[in-house]
Amino acid sequence: MKYAVGIDVGGTSVKLGLVSVEGEITEMWEIPTRTEDGGKNILPDIASSVKSKMSEKGLADDIVGAGIGLPGPVDDEGVIRKAVNLHWERTFNVADELSGLLDGMVVKAGNDANVAALGEYWQGAGKDYGDMVMVTLGTGIGGGIIHHGQIYAGTTGAGGEIGHICLEPDEKIHCNCGNTGCFEQYASATGIVRLAKEELGASTEESVLRQEEITAKAVWDAVRDGDSTAIRIADRFGYYLGWGLSIIAGVVNPEVFVLGGGVSKAGDIILPFVRKNFDKHAFHACRDAQIVIATLGNSAGTLGAAKMVIN
Amino acid sequence: MKYAVGIDVGGTSVKLGLVSVEGEITEMWEIPTRTEDGGKNILPDIASSVKSKMSEKGLADDIVGAGIGLPGPVDDEGVIRKAVNLHWERTFNVADELSGLLDGMVVKAGNDANVAALGEYWQGAGKDYGDMVMVTLGTGIGGGIIHHGQIYAGTTGAGGEIGHICLEPDEKIHCNCGNTGCFEQYASATGIVRLAKEELGASTEESVLRQEEITAKAVWDAVRDGDSTAIRIADRFGYYLGWGLSIIAGVVNPEVFVLGGGVSKAGDIILPFVRKNFDKHAFHACRDAQIVIATLGNSAGTLGAAKMVIN
Repeated sequence: MKYAVGIDVGGTSVKLGLVSVEGEITEMWEIPTRTEDGGKNILPDIASSVKSKMSEKGLADDIVGAGIGLPGPVDDEGVIRKAVNLHWERTFNVADELSGLLDGMVVKAGNDANVAALGEYWQGAGKDYGDMVMVTLGTGIGGGIIHHGQIYAGTTGAGGEIGHICLEPDEKIHCNCGNTGCFEQYASATGIVRLAKEELGASTEESVLRQEEITAKAVWDAVRDGDSTAIRIADRFGYYLGWGLSIIAGVVNPEVFVLGGGVSKAGDIILPFVRKNFDKHAFHACRDAQIVIATLGNSAGTLGAAKMVIN
Repeated sequence: MKYAVGIDVGGTSVKLGLVSVEGEITEMWEIPTRTEDGGKNILPDIASSVKSKMSEKGLADDIVGAGIGLPGPVDDEGVIRKAVNLHWERTFNVADELSGLLDGMVVKAGNDANVAALGEYWQGAGKDYGDMVMVTLGTGIGGGIIHHGQIYAGTTGAGGEIGHICLEPDEKIHCNCGNTGCFEQYASATGIVRLAKEELGASTEESVLRQEEITAKAVWDAVRDGDSTAIRIADRFGYYLGWGLSIIAGVVNPEVFVLGGGVSKAGDIILPFVRKNFDKHAFHACRDAQIVIATLGNSAGTLGAAKMVIN
């Protein structure tokens, strides 16, 4: 059996995995992400960890390559422009640099959200579909477009960076990106908490949400219990997420949207709220797109990274 | 020299061209589009016209294939679902059918807006760029995405059909598509006339636009003359077009937007109105996209159709 190495680089730790060309993770391990000194040790640390695992397992001739997902924009050639969380300030070709450290191994690099999308497409919720858009609903909204089985990186590696499309130009509150009215100001975990606070402030109706810290999870739990304030919050969240997805459908016409990230842990309960608004606003030719929940969790990044070098 | 046949099918006439593999149109001709009887003669008419041209020119061995652009959604395989203007109601593979009528010639088919985008990418305003989005501003808004030099057709052939992304969910007036608040309700030729009427109704300020029939051309001519009402109209048009393009940039991160269609005949004067709003709303990683005016006019369709079969 041949294997690829899948590498998922975060700001705190790097997850590595041996992935068979058939899509099974046979081994996973982690190393810390050493961000000091401008993050200069990160790639050498990864290379030496990959080499020792290969020698430990006697896999010298059985590795087809390594794929690496990174928290920053990466273009088709493997060039990263900046990765704040890794303390990388320069623009350089990560794939080439890691390949050099791995004695010429085939290496491909991608943005972490795009790489996770590829993982879900290969082995997760997108498995039975063609073109796919993954939407990661966490603190912000990340995304990745898979077209003809490949990551759509875009010109500067920002393809599928849908969290900052502007839905409300008149919004007064600024997004972290500096603009106003960004998609992720409404439809992320942070967004749903904000919508919840607004909704709770707008009425005095009893709600279980008045008794606890408001989180995305608390809102969905309350929806499940039939709390009417929570249902109104879910409606507003669904309004923004469904509308946003309908816009994305009108641009890239995917066969499926896969919803991942923390918010999606609430599961299928969020889907009707999204679907209703998607159907209302989507152009008829794009309206057949399915909307489903991601299935791979954290292993999407490892699998997708490996898939970049598996044909 | 080798040639391809470029075929651009409209509801009234079919434009055909012989295009050298280097991108020069050496001959153009037209035949009527016979839409009667469910449009059953359209493809046979095209095939027989292509064959007689080939025999007239003695090109039997010099044709690499034929590309055909059609007014309807066409997927990557050449399947068209419906083409109202051609009276085609069935779903079938146009490329295969035309190829059969042309004795097995290589044939590829695409949506007309996507094909025109490929033409501008190959020989027009998109020539010096990578990933491109063409935006055709006519009665409605059409569009085409070129990614890695290829048409991005999408799952049902509606990729780049950006005219119906919803910008104003609260709009009361319905779009032709049945939804409300579509991009083309504001930023098309029809949209600018509507914005003009609203703006003229909202004040009694003198304007040259009060003396004539309001068209997109009249508005831009008045802008050029410094008419302050016209400038306010252009501002509102630019607000919608710039905002809409910023959203598309946030999805597919192109290197360039090429503006074509009737409205773009006004030329560079429209660009500052669009650019200002694009820059305001675009995510910083996508903000470097250029916005330029199409250069090929009607020949974009012929060139793009031919390009589909030229490597």
